[in-house]
Amino acid sequence: MHRLPDARLDDLLAQDAPHGDLTTELLGIAEVPGRIVFAARDAMVACCMEEAAGMLARLGAEVTDVVPSGTAVPAGAQILAAQGPAGALHAAWKVAQTLVEYASGIATRTRGIVAAARAVSPGIVVACTRKNFPGAKDISAKAVVAGGASLHRLGLSETVLVFPEHRAFLAGDPAVWLADLKARAPEKKIVVEAATVVDAVALARAGADVVQLEKLSPADGAAVVKATRDLVPAPVIAAAGGITEANAAEHAASGVGVLVTSAPYSGRPADVKVTLGPIA
Amino acid sequence: MHRLPDARLDDLLAQDAPHGDLTTELLGIAEVPGRIVFAARDAMVACCMEEAAGMLARLGAEVTDVVPSGTAVPAGAQILAAQGPAGALHAAWKVAQTLVEYASGIATRTRGIVAAARAVSPGIVVACTRKNFPGAKDISAKAVVAGGASLHRLGLSETVLVFPEHRAFLAGDPAVWLADLKARAPEKKIVVEAATVVDAVALARAGADVVQLEKLSPADGAAVVKATRDLVPAPVIAAAGGITEANAAEHAASGVGVLVTSAPYSGRPADVKVTLGPIA
Amino acid sequence: MHRLPDARLDDLLAQDAPHGDLTTELLGIAEVPGRIVFAARDAMVACCMEEAAGMLARLGAEVTDVVPSGTAVPAGAQILAAQGPAGALHAAWKVAQTLVEYASGIATRTRGIVAAARAVSPGIVVACTRKNFPGAKDISAKAVVAGGASLHRLGLSETVLVFPEHRAFLAGDPAVWLADLKARAPEKKIVVEAATVVDAVALARAGADVVQLEKLSPADGAAVVKATRDLVPAPVIAAAGGITEANAAEHAASGVGVLVTSAPYSGRPADVKVTLGPIA
Amino acid sequence: MHRLPDARLDDLLAQDAPHGDLTTELLGIAEVPGRIVFAARDAMVACCMEEAAGMLARLGAEVTDVVPSGTAVPAGAQILAAQGPAGALHAAWKVAQTLVEYASGIATRTRGIVAAARAVSPGIVVACTRKNFPGAKDISAKAVVAGGASLHRLGLSETVLVFPEHRAFLAGDPAVWLADLKARAPEKKIVVEAATVVDAVALARAGADVVQLEKLSPADGAAVVKATRDLVPAPVIAAAGGITEANAAEHAASGVGVLVTSAPYSGRPADVKVTLGPIA
Amino acid sequence: MHRLPDARLDDLLAQDAPHGDLTTELLGIAEVPGRIVFAARDAMVACCMEEAAGMLARLGAEVTDVVPSGTAVPAGAQILAAQGPAGALHAAWKVAQTLVEYASGIATRTRGIVAAARAVSPGIVVACTRKNFPGAKDISAKAVVAGGASLHRLGLSETVLVFPEHRAFLAGDPAVWLADLKARAPEKKIVVEAATVVDAVALARAGADVVQLEKLSPADGAAVVKATRDLVPAPVIAAAGGITEANAAEHAASGVGVLVTSAPYSGRPADVKVTLGPIA
Amino acid sequence: MHRLPDARLDDLLAQDAPHGDLTTELLGIAEVPGRIVFAARDAMVACCMEEAAGMLARLGAEVTDVVPSGTAVPAGAQILAAQGPAGALHAAWKVAQTLVEYASGIATRTRGIVAAARAVSPGIVVACTRKNFPGAKDISAKAVVAGGASLHRLGLSETVLVFPEHRAFLAGDPAVWLADLKARAPEKKIVVEAATVVDAVALARAGADVVQLEKLSPADGAAVVKATRDLVPAPVIAAAGGITEANAAEHAASGVGVLVTSAPYSGRPADVKVTLGPIA
Repeated sequence: MHRLPDARLDDLLAQDAPHGDLTTELLGIAEVPGRIVFAARDAMVACCMEEAAGMLARLGAEVTDVVPSGTAVPAGAQILAAQGPAGALHAAWKVAQTLVEYASGIATRTRGIVAAARAVSPGIVVACTRKNFPGAKDISAKAVVAGGASLHRLGLSETVLVFPEHRAFLAGDPAVWLADLKARAPEKKIVVEAATVVDAVALARAGADVVQLEKLSPADGAAVVKATRDLVPAPVIAAAGGITEANAAEHAASGVGVLVTSAPYSGRPADVKVTLGPIA
Repeated sequence: MHRLPDARLDDLLAQDAPHGDLTTELLGIAEVPGRIVFAARDAMVACCMEEAAGMLARLGAEVTDVVPSGTAVPAGAQILAAQGPAGALHAAWKVAQTLVEYASGIATRTRGIVAAARAVSPGIVVACTRKNFPGAKDISAKAVVAGGASLHRLGLSETVLVFPEHRAFLAGDPAVWLADLKARAPEKKIVVEAATVVDAVALARAGADVVQLEKLSPADGAAVVKATRDLVPAPVIAAAGGITEANAAEHAASGVGVLVTSAPYSGRPADVKVTLGPIA
Repeated sequence: MHRLPDARLDDLLAQDAPHGDLTTELLGIAEVPGRIVFAARDAMVACCMEEAAGMLARLGAEVTDVVPSGTAVPAGAQILAAQGPAGALHAAWKVAQTLVEYASGIATRTRGIVAAARAVSPGIVVACTRKNFPGAKDISAKAVVAGGASLHRLGLSETVLVFPEHRAFLAGDPAVWLADLKARAPEKKIVVEAATVVDAVALARAGADVVQLEKLSPADGAAVVKATRDLVPAPVIAAAGGITEANAAEHAASGVGVLVTSAPYSGRPADVKVTLGPIA
Repeated sequence: MHRLPDARLDDLLAQDAPHGDLTTELLGIAEVPGRIVFAARDAMVACCMEEAAGMLARLGAEVTDVVPSGTAVPAGAQILAAQGPAGALHAAWKVAQTLVEYASGIATRTRGIVAAARAVSPGIVVACTRKNFPGAKDISAKAVVAGGASLHRLGLSETVLVFPEHRAFLAGDPAVWLADLKARAPEKKIVVEAATVVDAVALARAGADVVQLEKLSPADGAAVVKATRDLVPAPVIAAAGGITEANAAEHAASGVGVLVTSAPYSGRPADVKVTLGPIA
Repeated sequence: MHRLPDARLDDLLAQDAPHGDLTTELLGIAEVPGRIVFAARDAMVACCMEEAAGMLARLGAEVTDVVPSGTAVPAGAQILAAQGPAGALHAAWKVAQTLVEYASGIATRTRGIVAAARAVSPGIVVACTRKNFPGAKDISAKAVVAGGASLHRLGLSETVLVFPEHRAFLAGDPAVWLADLKARAPEKKIVVEAATVVDAVALARAGADVVQLEKLSPADGAAVVKATRDLVPAPVIAAAGGITEANAAEHAASGVGVLVTSAPYSGRPADVKVTLGPIA
Repeated sequence: MHRLPDARLDDLLAQDAPHGDLTTELLGIAEVPGRIVFAARDAMVACCMEEAAGMLARLGAEVTDVVPSGTAVPAGAQILAAQGPAGALHAAWKVAQTLVEYASGIATRTRGIVAAARAVSPGIVVACTRKNFPGAKDISAKAVVAGGASLHRLGLSETVLVFPEHRAFLAGDPAVWLADLKARAPEKKIVVEAATVVDAVALARAGADVVQLEKLSPADGAAVVKATRDLVPAPVIAAAGGITEANAAEHAASGVGVLVTSAPYSGRPADVKVTLGPIA
């Protein structure tokens, strides 16, 4: 799995300790050999484990054990262990823990949605939006993939997604501008957001490759699927807006092909128990 | 209030649209004059408004209205308006919206905790930890301040906070190492984390300036306060661990001087309604 | 059109003059008012004009005239004029000129290919690869768009393109892994590279959304088009490998929908004549 | 030879795959052991080989063979080989290949000019301008040196080069400002550009250390050399403007000491054949 | 002790040799094996030794000996030795030497002040200001700590220090705003600068945790100490302004708890003798 | 004069106040209108004035007066004035002041050396080394130029300076490698360091363009000048090593053409008095 570059790890460490760890230095314990262990308090999908290990290693600790990002672990499972000077362990501790907790939280919630959806629709795809915490696209993207979902779009430069806010500037028949977009971007699918069943079906008939239903009910989603599944080629119908682990199955059961969600990005970080002490 | 530097705004924009907004370009609407309005869907404390406005301005829009960060607004209130070429508005839209939503979410939750605590203990301070989303200390810190709280510590280099994980490396009487720390860092308060009433009281008597109670109940907190308030100087007692808007009043009622919390960092982003369309 | 951020302009300037312009300083002419004019020596599609103007402005000159990027200008046309202290004009001169020359060179060659192809196949799309000069994706992408082409892919993270070098690691029937890719990435078109007519047709029949012909002749391209155009949905056939302005028409005449090319990235920069002297 | 810093390599990789290699991940082949080999399709001077190897190594591959930058290799020669997980090989592939191709293209063209010039004037120096692709001074400089040339000037801050565009702001006798420049910059040679034989000779007589002939014919260059070679000290005469491998010998034969050229920067990248597949 | 991140070392090297070491390359000696030794010309406290070693290692040399930062060494002592290609040694030489010289100069002067002060007041703390060379807070902070002092404050975001220039904007009794600050920042000591004995005593009585005496004489300092030492809690009295090694003892004898000084930041760099030559 | 880019100013500000100015915020005075004035306590050459003004402006203050960098001002002279919200003035205050103080200190010492030297040798050049504070080449270079000196060399990539440490790797007659260097770098002067009169004269006779005398006495310098001044072309003789304002005249009187010095980089910052208070 993709690993964040060294400079990113160094930046995270430097934001927290630009001039070292004052407490550990003042206490005079920085050179005492110690051991740090990360364990999952609850079942979780571990993420950014390579980066946590990398931080410890860059500060001078030796990582003796680490699970790969994407691993589902039970409550209590050890996910990382390292030993080295107490100063290195203390300097990396909270930054590494926080990174793992946030990333694993996203990965775990992602997998929850994926599992709920696939239980009723095995081939369904869960795609996470770009509404991640600002500035943390790299961590968020890694966590989404670790959780089993894909990225809906990385940003504005590489996908075509027509919102109603675009259509407000357009006149004329959707079939016209859809045909134009398809002609101009033949290597990409044209995604259009629709807010009603009628609009969704019309857009599908007009040629949209993907119709993204904005906050439609599962029943409405099913209606769109039913009305469009015999089109050739059949459009991809994606449900978006308020999809969570709680309602993912219901949306999946509507027959849509994709669930688009921002839900994994918010919620509590995973809870990682850290044990840090001297080597006995 | 502190404003994030231009380079940070440009980075956030470039992460989302490194090579421009493909959809808007392909649709040929980039030069059409438009208007964008941000409004609060729910009551919220607005944050990162200067930065959202800055993004729009940097891309060529004219900001006609913006509330300052830290403003509590009712549901429905307009918080920002701008006009300019549709291409500028679309390129800034989601990045600015997401920034405001996350920052305002933190600010709003922060203010909720502050209000709950101050309702019963008017002078109490709420201090937020450094367990913010990795890499987003700048946004998070601004949001915490906008919400009326302070920052518990910026990082390891500028405060002295002795965790049990430090004490595991220390032998001897806390009074000894506390006196040593106080002598070595006379311009800083020495903060020590305690996990029991007995330990907390002992640390206070041993000279800790601030005793941070880790996951003690309000009753236990009250016991610590009672046992230490006649010390001269009286230590600051800070309650930490699991403090949320729901239990903030109860903890505040225990008489502690500070509530330390990470709760504002997780939860849903504030919900900002964006209206974007051509100028009629 | 997308504009490079200020920090990028400053970096380009600082690479050339990290500590100012020694010659101009030593000559003592830095404060003398002057005027700089950029003109096209040959017909060209101007590009990075906003950035050249931005550089001059950031150093203290006043830009009095500039054509937008993407403008086709005849030989001799003035494309930018500014006035200000000679020191500012000299410091920006070559950096701005070189930027415009390289970017306009790419834009001009791009438009040449587009024009040649569209003369015989009006709706054809020219897509440029990511084989731009290393580190200059931003400039290159802007130039490609200014020239009327699109970007084939921005990079590895946002498109699915199966090369023979991937297939070397795959066993089994393409229909199987194609179906799997389509299921896993329903919002993206699946692009597969083929090196023979037979393989291309097989891949199209197996479900590839886009078949990219690697160095096939126009005749072979026509054969693939003919063999696949009645598939429902018909795949996009893209010709790639060695496509230049000289053979673009021939390839376009084969009926393919896309020409994929790296040709615009190499070749001579556009020739911009710069006149710089005192204000009379 | 100078090696680009790690952060530069990481940046190039991250520009291409900010969030990993989607195709390889979706195909599920990222962990399969593979092998990658770079070979020269044509005779070339290899360049940025250390950087290509560094990229592969940073992503987790083991480089088993690499020729040093600056090595002239015959058509077909293997220049780099590595093995490791397919994901690492695919993620580094095109970025490393493109880097080697562009840098080797410049190095090869540089050496062609050097060889042509030295065949008739063994001690002649070829110096390349700073008109490299914007933002790629590091790669370009390495390639120029690998090709056997030197850098005419790195930028404005460290050399004194008086263009006619400077002289437009100067009044009076060149001997006056030349003497002034020489007095003020005694550790540097004073370079002046001249556009006619008469001007060149006058500048040499007035004391220019280096006279750079802008687009003079070889015959005119020879005239300048002849008219100035008995000056004590004799100035360096440099021919500039439109010098390519085709005319380098002719210019060299004129007796000038330096050929200044931008020609290596444009032209086709060297052609590197990459073989990538599973370890048999 | 805290180590500067790799990217910082690379930046320092790249500022000095963005495109390699021209002299060494032209002389053709870059690959000859050599040895470099750093030795202290005078007694000094060595600093930034890990970084100097890191620079040599990053360029390809092998460090065979290095003393830790903070080590007091006598005149003549070897502090670092490395061997490797002459090109690596020459490229790192002056950058590493200069870094060690400046950092060790600060560390040595710091230790001089600390020693002078502690000779008469063993528990006194020396705290260095943030008036370091602009942009070099990281190096300066490391040197201060290596010299045995602490950092007065890292910057504006993490400490509360009320200058007269703040008080100029405040009305009313210091006791009021001091109580307010203490209430709002209970985890921090409130530091206030005073310029007279009367003001200092008044501020201490009004509740300042730390009173920083701006340019008061030792006698005045003693008067403040005497007048405030029976307050409960007793404030920390810090002497600031013009404190150097020459007068540190006198200030320390006044009974103040902290000496605040910028003196270590200016003065001559430590003198490091470098021996660099071929391996015999 | 060259101005540091905006990003550099923002970085300096952010290093000092990454999350705003805590004291000013807590005191609630950030929005009160105020005025800041910088004045020279002693006669000085002001430097980095444009940057100090730029910092104030970027934070929202209006600069009403500023002297250009390089201006010699008498004691007491106002060099900068601005007004704006107290929060902006306080946030910029110390960073801007410190920048001006260090840069002006260097500029002032530089001008002192220049004046001393030119009093006896009007045309002499003072050149400052690259032994500036690590990481501050930009500020240092600006200050050197503001003081009337030039930069000896920017770094390793753009000048040829042969140290004894290079010669340790060279065999044979200096005339041979000097001729080789001159042939290979015809656009640059070849500088060689010598430690004795005999060596210096020999190097001059062997063809060195510049002979840099390392720690020779003025008498020895005069001997070298005398022995080499009739060479055609006469070499530039540069005195280096321990040159300060105190001995500059003596060295200048020896007849050398250049004084190479690092002395301006160390010493006390210039003393700038800052007045900051509310607008009456």
